[in-house]
Amino acid sequence: MHDDQVRDGEVVLPFDPGAQENGPRCVFIGHVESPWKNRRECPRNVAIARARMQEMGAGAALHIDAPYRPGLEALAPYEYIVVLYWMHQAARHIIVQRPRHMPGRRGVFSLRSPVRPNPIALSTVRVLELDEQNGVIRIDAIDCMDGTPLIDIRPWNADIDMPPDWCERMQSNDHK
Amino acid sequence: MHDDQVRDGEVVLPFDPGAQENGPRCVFIGHVESPWKNRRECPRNVAIARARMQEMGAGAALHIDAPYRPGLEALAPYEYIVVLYWMHQAARHIIVQRPRHMPGRRGVFSLRSPVRPNPIALSTVRVLELDEQNGVIRIDAIDCMDGTPLIDIRPWNADIDMPPDWCERMQSNDHK
Repeated sequence: MHDDQVRDGEVVLPFDPGAQENGPRCVFIGHVESPWKNRRECPRNVAIARARMQEMGAGAALHIDAPYRPGLEALAPYEYIVVLYWMHQAARHIIVQRPRHMPGRRGVFSLRSPVRPNPIALSTVRVLELDEQNGVIRIDAIDCMDGTPLIDIRPWNADIDMPPDWCERMQSNDHK
Repeated sequence: MHDDQVRDGEVVLPFDPGAQENGPRCVFIGHVESPWKNRRECPRNVAIARARMQEMGAGAALHIDAPYRPGLEALAPYEYIVVLYWMHQAARHIIVQRPRHMPGRRGVFSLRSPVRPNPIALSTVRVLELDEQNGVIRIDAIDCMDGTPLIDIRPWNADIDMPPDWCERMQSNDHK
């Protein structure tokens, strides 16, 4: 149950989602190559990772396993992709959390924490280079540990992945 | 294997990801309430759903199962959330596809199709009303069938979910 990961004042589920015997299985389609070799090193999100990796001159990549490589056809025109990865070391049963970087307690669905019933992380990253043949996608940055299992990639799409009026709002805030 | 869903010229995996016996299980945390009662009615994405639902005056909601409701604590301040849902009726083995709405063949990772090795759909939606007690989140729109299982929700975050320079680019395109 990863009870060593539970902090004072946190609330846990009466069961471990990771030990459930129903629900569909995810398949891993490959893995992440990143400069972060253990959990403590990992930046809190991809924006912080991007800044740190630029400083370090470090790179990252997504490695797609052979059977899934034909799925990369026609990806080349897309500059930004959404990456879904499985945070395999995270506890799944802490439903109310006390994050280190913010005050008070918060429900898991108000957080981007990797600790969640389905420990799926989500980042939008830039494609620098695509090698369809070998299933390697060089990307600008990622926040997870080297070796983290990949479960999906897809083109980022402003219509789907962004509030409809976001840029207009940002612009009018700039002019206030 | 859902072979009835395979079109001429499509390429399938030599195995069905939906029948694999390893890989971690997802748990369903609730379900989607939507105006779309069968697959044919479903709009192609959340932007189209938003337009059609506005026309129809229809609403949508996310229903969170009782054990997971404490996870909604502190979600109230967020206007936009990312919703992850499991497209339980979609085939998982079609790795190169011929979508109806675009010419030619395309790898699954270049598409937002629900048909993918892990049939997880992803949309950014607006929260209209949050009832923590009963686990109901009224949202502006969603593109999936009524009853679709939910696997996660989290606050949308511009730093994580958007290309870093997107609005600046849109703005400079406007001025060209």
